[in-house]
Amino acid sequence: MDKVKFGILGMGNMGTGHFNNFIKGNIENGIVTAVSDISQKRLDEIQEKMPGDYKVYTSSEELIEKADVDAVIIAVPHYDHPNLVIKALNRGLHVLCEKPAGVYTKHVREMNEVADKSNKLFSLMYNQRTNPLYIKMHDIISSGELGTLRRVNWIITNWFRTQFYFDSGSWRATWKGEGGGALMNQCPHQIDLLQWIVGEMPNKIHAHCHFGKWHDIEVEDDVTAYMEFPSGATGCFITSTGDAPGSNRLEILCSKGRLLCENDKLTIHKNKEDIQDYINTCENGFSAPEFEVEVVEQDYKRNTQHVGIINNFANAILGIEKLYVKGQEGINCVELINAMLLSSFKNKEVTLPIDDDEYFEELSKRVKTSRLKEGSGIVLDTSSSYGGTK
Amino acid sequence: MDKVKFGILGMGNMGTGHFNNFIKGNIENGIVTAVSDISQKRLDEIQEKMPGDYKVYTSSEELIEKADVDAVIIAVPHYDHPNLVIKALNRGLHVLCEKPAGVYTKHVREMNEVADKSNKLFSLMYNQRTNPLYIKMHDIISSGELGTLRRVNWIITNWFRTQFYFDSGSWRATWKGEGGGALMNQCPHQIDLLQWIVGEMPNKIHAHCHFGKWHDIEVEDDVTAYMEFPSGATGCFITSTGDAPGSNRLEILCSKGRLLCENDKLTIHKNKEDIQDYINTCENGFSAPEFEVEVVEQDYKRNTQHVGIINNFANAILGIEKLYVKGQEGINCVELINAMLLSSFKNKEVTLPIDDDEYFEELSKRVKTSRLKEGSGIVLDTSSSYGGTK
Repeated sequence: MDKVKFGILGMGNMGTGHFNNFIKGNIENGIVTAVSDISQKRLDEIQEKMPGDYKVYTSSEELIEKADVDAVIIAVPHYDHPNLVIKALNRGLHVLCEKPAGVYTKHVREMNEVADKSNKLFSLMYNQRTNPLYIKMHDIISSGELGTLRRVNWIITNWFRTQFYFDSGSWRATWKGEGGGALMNQCPHQIDLLQWIVGEMPNKIHAHCHFGKWHDIEVEDDVTAYMEFPSGATGCFITSTGDAPGSNRLEILCSKGRLLCENDKLTIHKNKEDIQDYINTCENGFSAPEFEVEVVEQDYKRNTQHVGIINNFANAILGIEKLYVKGQEGINCVELINAMLLSSFKNKEVTLPIDDDEYFEELSKRVKTSRLKEGSGIVLDTSSSYGGTK
Repeated sequence: MDKVKFGILGMGNMGTGHFNNFIKGNIENGIVTAVSDISQKRLDEIQEKMPGDYKVYTSSEELIEKADVDAVIIAVPHYDHPNLVIKALNRGLHVLCEKPAGVYTKHVREMNEVADKSNKLFSLMYNQRTNPLYIKMHDIISSGELGTLRRVNWIITNWFRTQFYFDSGSWRATWKGEGGGALMNQCPHQIDLLQWIVGEMPNKIHAHCHFGKWHDIEVEDDVTAYMEFPSGATGCFITSTGDAPGSNRLEILCSKGRLLCENDKLTIHKNKEDIQDYINTCENGFSAPEFEVEVVEQDYKRNTQHVGIINNFANAILGIEKLYVKGQEGINCVELINAMLLSSFKNKEVTLPIDDDEYFEELSKRVKTSRLKEGSGIVLDTSSSYGGTK
């Protein structure tokens, strides 16, 4: 095949954004031949505004069944991700799914089992993994050069959202519609990056999620989560959609150095000695290991984000590149979010891996009593809401 | 009186440092006329090295009873603070006590009752309250200009200490000798500043203290504490004596702005609108209140630290100045530390005010099984270990 034929499921904020990238010619080896949305009105708008030779469908399932496509990009509400991934893979399509992989681990695990058996490519839109600063952090830690993990703190509170934002869609910020808030909707990237960069999953979490604290919503809009890792490290993850100005500061201490990422700048401290050896052997009370400092500025050109992920996915289908993000890894992020929510629901420490059934049960209780609301139906321009480390 | 006659109780690191400040002429209206230490060897060294017309005593109590002094500076191990404060006040002396005010609230409360009834001055060595950046933060929040508190995060992990440090004194880092570790010994300033700057005490704490995690010690050397405040704000306090390089970053978000203090620089964001009003009324999903930014650099000359506190104390005794730090406020810091430790001992959320008796009981259990160790007896130069916001 010359170009990979794509179907895009969901013409909301993200799906429309992806379609635009194809139209602008940003996806070298891909072309959109079909799009779907449950709203005929939305499809009419799309056909009016977006040029190209593509078919429209009012159902994701119908597109998967009937459209002339090699691959689909799934950009529908979170709950439908695993079902549609499974359907598309089973129909023999390659799948690139928006984050999060799903809302609860039980569902994601079923999806992963299908993906494991499929010979089609399955990837996730972890566009922040194209950020050169995070790649650098991942590479330096996975090389072993910085020794063992001791501490990770991520304060990511620059997700300020107004009530108007949450009111724009009936599904937004409800247990039934999204299955979570700041963690599930804003932070999947950071939570994925956290475990990807440090190279391990926490084994204990005690989180303090506050639900509808700053907004008239059902789900969490303020979170402080404490974590412990198998290596003995501890961590803290702090997020909110009610802070302005917010922060985005990721600090990782290892036994041979520290990584600090803030304001599109990565500061690397490399200690000349292992901290623990130094503690144990130094014959001075107040001195500390000497270090060298390197500052890495953001390389905006290489920070390709969604375009980078879609290009890699298309090229991997064509056999030109190796697939960058393996879709099955998405369960880690969902498990961390589930653990943080479960810990807050029960006000207790949670050990990982979590009990899939227990979480599903707790979530289901909340879905059952989830309130109905009317959405304004406005499609928001999300283009300024991702990509940076500021 | 021309100059206030001081006795200094304890010729360890801190007491010797204070004495040096008198000898150097840094204390305008004070003179040292007596010092005490339980070690005759240490007193011999002092008399050899430190010039002046002063008497030496091998007991704090004896100095308090017999010496020709108007005031004492107490720089003995933590546990003895309240007893000696009470004795000195009862003998009619003014008292400036090193931090912390004591080790457990039960004891500090007894001390405060005596201080409340005394007509002598009682102050604490909260030298970090002379730091112009922290004063600015305190002033701006207490003025009400920034609205209500929403979040406070303090990562203060630049307290790196070697095993050699802890081995230098037999009392160090034991439940029996110090009654705590990073919180009780390194962080009393920050914990005092936290409540002083934000202007309220948390009403709930869930802390994760790790005891002897990085060092061969009994007490905590790694802490992550989550806090909730009566105003609805949340907070996080992270400290360690095992991190290198460490951080010192204090971030406070209020409804009308943010204060960020790091690297001897205070960045003040003043929002043009109250965040909560903006959330509730703005008709845009992603926008946030506009703000003005002011950066305040450290004024090293005005950062007078211990010298500033001792001068103020002497001048207050002479009626020239108002006393800057009221000793009774020290209980807030002790209560916060006790709450963090109690929460960790019991692995539960603790509400404040804490149960004084419960904490005393838990501490006593640990004191009973506290191990004996031999100290090297080395007096460490602590002069580089305080004062900054880096």
